[in-house]
Amino acid sequence: MTDIQLQSLLKEMTLTEKIAQLLQLAPAFYEGADSAGQITGPLEGMGITEETVHHAGSVLGLGGAEEAIAIQDAHIRNHRLSIPLVAMADVIHGYRTIFPVPLALGSSWNLELAQRSAAIAAKEASVAGIHVTFSPMADLTRDPRWGRVMESTGEDPWLNSLFARAFVRGYQGVDLSKEPYKLAACIKHFAAYGAAEGGRDYNTVDMSEWMRREYYMPSYRAALEEGCEMVMTAFNTVDGVPATGNRRLMRDMLRDEWGFDGVLISDWGAVKEMIPHGVAEDERECALKAIEAGVDIEMMTPCYVHHLQELVESGEVDEALIDEAVMRILKLKRKLGLFENPHRYADPAMEREILLSGEHRAAAHEAALKSCVLLKNEAMLPLSKTAKVALIGPFALSDDLLGPWSCMGVREEAVTLNQGMLAIAGQSQVSAASCGVESMTDQELAAMLAAAREADVVVLALGESSEMSGEAGCRADIRLPGMQLELVKQVKALGKPVAVVLFNGRPLDLHGVLEEADAVLEAWYPGSNGGAAVAELLYGVVNPSGRLTMSFPHSVGQVPVYYNSFNTGRPQGAPDAQVRYVSQYLDIPNEPLLPFGYGLSYADFQYGEAVLSANELNADSKLQLSVRVTNAGRLEGEETVQLYIRDIAGETVRPLRELKAFEKTALMPGESKDIVFEITEEMLRYHHSDLQYKSDPGQFMVMVGPNSRDVQELKFVLKA
Amino acid sequence: MTDIQLQSLLKEMTLTEKIAQLLQLAPAFYEGADSAGQITGPLEGMGITEETVHHAGSVLGLGGAEEAIAIQDAHIRNHRLSIPLVAMADVIHGYRTIFPVPLALGSSWNLELAQRSAAIAAKEASVAGIHVTFSPMADLTRDPRWGRVMESTGEDPWLNSLFARAFVRGYQGVDLSKEPYKLAACIKHFAAYGAAEGGRDYNTVDMSEWMRREYYMPSYRAALEEGCEMVMTAFNTVDGVPATGNRRLMRDMLRDEWGFDGVLISDWGAVKEMIPHGVAEDERECALKAIEAGVDIEMMTPCYVHHLQELVESGEVDEALIDEAVMRILKLKRKLGLFENPHRYADPAMEREILLSGEHRAAAHEAALKSCVLLKNEAMLPLSKTAKVALIGPFALSDDLLGPWSCMGVREEAVTLNQGMLAIAGQSQVSAASCGVESMTDQELAAMLAAAREADVVVLALGESSEMSGEAGCRADIRLPGMQLELVKQVKALGKPVAVVLFNGRPLDLHGVLEEADAVLEAWYPGSNGGAAVAELLYGVVNPSGRLTMSFPHSVGQVPVYYNSFNTGRPQGAPDAQVRYVSQYLDIPNEPLLPFGYGLSYADFQYGEAVLSANELNADSKLQLSVRVTNAGRLEGEETVQLYIRDIAGETVRPLRELKAFEKTALMPGESKDIVFEITEEMLRYHHSDLQYKSDPGQFMVMVGPNSRDVQELKFVLKA
Repeated sequence: MTDIQLQSLLKEMTLTEKIAQLLQLAPAFYEGADSAGQITGPLEGMGITEETVHHAGSVLGLGGAEEAIAIQDAHIRNHRLSIPLVAMADVIHGYRTIFPVPLALGSSWNLELAQRSAAIAAKEASVAGIHVTFSPMADLTRDPRWGRVMESTGEDPWLNSLFARAFVRGYQGVDLSKEPYKLAACIKHFAAYGAAEGGRDYNTVDMSEWMRREYYMPSYRAALEEGCEMVMTAFNTVDGVPATGNRRLMRDMLRDEWGFDGVLISDWGAVKEMIPHGVAEDERECALKAIEAGVDIEMMTPCYVHHLQELVESGEVDEALIDEAVMRILKLKRKLGLFENPHRYADPAMEREILLSGEHRAAAHEAALKSCVLLKNEAMLPLSKTAKVALIGPFALSDDLLGPWSCMGVREEAVTLNQGMLAIAGQSQVSAASCGVESMTDQELAAMLAAAREADVVVLALGESSEMSGEAGCRADIRLPGMQLELVKQVKALGKPVAVVLFNGRPLDLHGVLEEADAVLEAWYPGSNGGAAVAELLYGVVNPSGRLTMSFPHSVGQVPVYYNSFNTGRPQGAPDAQVRYVSQYLDIPNEPLLPFGYGLSYADFQYGEAVLSANELNADSKLQLSVRVTNAGRLEGEETVQLYIRDIAGETVRPLRELKAFEKTALMPGESKDIVFEITEEMLRYHHSDLQYKSDPGQFMVMVGPNSRDVQELKFVLKA
Repeated sequence: MTDIQLQSLLKEMTLTEKIAQLLQLAPAFYEGADSAGQITGPLEGMGITEETVHHAGSVLGLGGAEEAIAIQDAHIRNHRLSIPLVAMADVIHGYRTIFPVPLALGSSWNLELAQRSAAIAAKEASVAGIHVTFSPMADLTRDPRWGRVMESTGEDPWLNSLFARAFVRGYQGVDLSKEPYKLAACIKHFAAYGAAEGGRDYNTVDMSEWMRREYYMPSYRAALEEGCEMVMTAFNTVDGVPATGNRRLMRDMLRDEWGFDGVLISDWGAVKEMIPHGVAEDERECALKAIEAGVDIEMMTPCYVHHLQELVESGEVDEALIDEAVMRILKLKRKLGLFENPHRYADPAMEREILLSGEHRAAAHEAALKSCVLLKNEAMLPLSKTAKVALIGPFALSDDLLGPWSCMGVREEAVTLNQGMLAIAGQSQVSAASCGVESMTDQELAAMLAAAREADVVVLALGESSEMSGEAGCRADIRLPGMQLELVKQVKALGKPVAVVLFNGRPLDLHGVLEEADAVLEAWYPGSNGGAAVAELLYGVVNPSGRLTMSFPHSVGQVPVYYNSFNTGRPQGAPDAQVRYVSQYLDIPNEPLLPFGYGLSYADFQYGEAVLSANELNADSKLQLSVRVTNAGRLEGEETVQLYIRDIAGETVRPLRELKAFEKTALMPGESKDIVFEITEEMLRYHHSDLQYKSDPGQFMVMVGPNSRDVQELKFVLKA
């Protein structure tokens, strides 16, 4: 369809039909849904008519290709102008083949892997009839209490930007309108949802515009630069106004300043949530504020369909605003090819063939291998295949490995750790015993301890159930449940070597685990093939290579703790610092328990002296920093060499270090490689207090090393 | 001196002399100081000459009237133009007579008391030769990890404003230039220092300007409206720029918009701290940024004296900026009468007479009585004088009751709890045994348990040592030290009634205390007569009447938790709320353990039905809310009736409740009083997203009750 054809379609639509186009409903409302029969209840609850449903623009969350086809067919039949539905869903880290959670994928520092995971998710979802995914979430996160940290790639704006781009490329391909089996991506949650106060989901967000632009906005912007088709509003306030009704944020910044002309959708119910937020007295005011802010699609609440018509008729809302919104939705449908082929790639036969195919499972397996982070290893791992291993703890036999937001993933299809270890070491070498996540019976404890006593080594599989993180999965206490810490003590008392494997969705306070265990492997929620991948890492079939992208705090009392913080005027440890009057806690260090970028390997990577090609830089020149990395260990492994920069004095305060480059390199035992990074003026830009983005001449420090803490420091000067 | 005379004095001054006027040094630098002989070291350390010291403008922290007189005499002799020094000090909650810490005074909800405490502090300090106090601190605080919460009056902007005004009135009187024995007050820390990230002192502060103006600025502004002479800069950043070099904050807002023309002083070392902050490469840049921002006095660092001269000579700084700063300092000296009487009220004889006089001690005693908050009482208190009491725990015999920032207070002059109880009940009825704050020996434990076993009831005196709060006294764990919680358990196991008295400087996580004890009295750091006052409360000589002005959190994982928070779009407990997808933690409630405004009494106050005089209001009318309060108990007591308002829908989000009025009323047993509050449109104003301060027509809720949680709700409408 040409623009002219779309315009004439728009002209044919009644105002009511246009407004209905702005509504998104769950499948239960639609004729053809598997869940037919539920339709009356929702319709009544929402106070909308069948006629409205027949002309709604989009559907949220489908059950598969057959349902998608049935709903679309019925919809086109029922729609006066036969405009097809666009089908959206939360395809977050896989559709049926479940990849590690995004926080885990972030820990891979592997963009190609992230892109591939998204491409596979897109393929599975598109044959199941989905057109748009509400992913990636690019929210910067600093608070492990917040359950949705598992859906983020971490605390670094630049790394989050790279991942956001990779996911968008994976979902959308280079050209969404031409490449098969792609989804439109939707960046979320605009903006700054990751800063929910107290780490409590949906809570107030407040920060300066300077902070927002410098830390929280880059990853959304990067996704849009990558061509991301859609944006979702955040549940939170921005400058005291809910994002969904925030005209300055949406119309002035996102649309006018950034030039975003794609579809802006509210998060679930967020338009009507302006009432409890206290910026709207009723649905009518919600509709007014959202349409004025520039929200095109209202998800699951009826403020638009109930009130936009009268708001237009009363002259309070210009019909042009409605037309714009409808046109953006129609253009998305055109780009998705829905006018020509309303079923798009929905294909029940292909769905049966490719969902959780061997190839997809293998990709998820590889992603899990690359996502796990070895946090400690006192010469205990890898396990010998001839050792007698007791595999105990709540996750020994558990299939709760997919994590929150696992879409159409089926827990029973996940490979458990026990299955993974048996496959490598055999029945005779592994004895497993399990318990609950938050409680254990005396019998369970006795069985676990008995297994441990008879074994040479113990693998203790601990963690959080997937309900303990994810949306609304916020915890004020970020330790493992007390019962698990008790189990660690009891097992430790047996005197056997203990390796702990953690399955969880957030940085935890690991006191009571990290000191006690001989080795700790952070496995996150590793997805469909998680248990198999973790077993390969434990037995050294593959060498762990993940690196943390969120700091692990000493305790919840240290939150927020993040690597790219400011020095303050009274830093701890300065040469002339006083003992007391510096910025610190009396009872814990300022440093996190485990820093950003941290992760161990069975290999032994050694760094030579880093060298800068010059000590001055200007806008037209480049510096090279080179450092030789050697694998001095006995196993092949992959190192992630990280480059950080610090601006010694800016116009605003500048972080102690900012990740500016990294390189992953695989090294055989004894092998060395020279890693060379380029430093340019562009890497030194930041937001000034007037919000201008530019660099300042002056002194800089460049740091290189295996993580954000253990670095070599060199200096250079940026000349004007 | 007239303005013309001051101008001609300024003209006589060389640029060097002017710049020296902007320097503030500690007494050790000065001839005549008691600590003479230390002078060489500091001079060398700071790289300044004796000549500079001779022309410096102010001195910080003196040892008493004799030293003040000696230093002033020597200074005038040494100064080419005989300009006297102005002497400043941290007179925070008393000079020698120590009042309860400000967080405790805040808990009194008694402005007259706060004013009187400041007036007495001013009297003592002024006869000791002090002219200016660095008080009040009006920082709004929401994070109990921060040690300086003890120096704040709490989490409410309006109540903080009232207290800031009361302190200013107490220090300065109605007319500082005429009233004897007054100090100039200095509001601090401008701005928003109370929001130090992670509750870590000196740490980054970041918030929206909207938030800053609505919550954090009102108390500073109120103090200035009250005539407060000086302002101190904060250590923290504001919008990414340290306050001390923040031109937008200081020159544009404080000076130009608010019209403040008094002296702006840096906090200790804060000018030079712009180097570690990373906004200045060297002292020269620090000096440039501070003078441009409008900082008149540099405290304890030499950036001005080292570099302002060359900055003026190079044309980078207009000498007019220096002249302005000097003139503000000279005008302050004039207002203090120092040109005519450079010793002002310094008077060694009177100092000996009035410091910690009986009258002053009595005032401190009364302040302590009004500041303690009864948190729990299961029919255990008041104690009977005939009961055998075991007084045990780290604060049983401790004189660490003055708290941080106790100026010239002497611990040994504090009345301990043991002394206070003995004075009431006599030697035969009280047996005391003590231990450390963070540790106890086996013998100490045995002695405490033995005392408890032989007693009818136990008073367990627990708390934090004063080093555990105050400046730089930040704790990531806000529970009592583990040893004390263990002591609670062991004492509880004896089965005797247990009353816990808490001496501490912050809201604590009281799990392990509040459930276990039969009664809990929060005594804060109660000051010079603290133990006597607390004993009177325990024995019911006086009825406790304090009310919390900071929420006590469930755990540190709930921080920040404060009563005037926003509803969010997904509040917990809404009629149609889902079970999971609401703003909450999985493991603790959203509500604090003890809410703002909370406090019990030995009396039993009952509230009748509240009545509104009308249900509509406009800009010209007033509403009356009246409620009858009855003391249904058997003891006389004082109730604090609190009025809160909620704006149902604003242009920005509006808090769930905001304190708008309160009335303290003393009631005899059986007595009733009708408490009447007036509600006006002015009380409904707030900062809109464009920062305009005004009200909006619409629905409001008004709440009345004994604290912010247990309220009756009524509705009214504001008409346009």
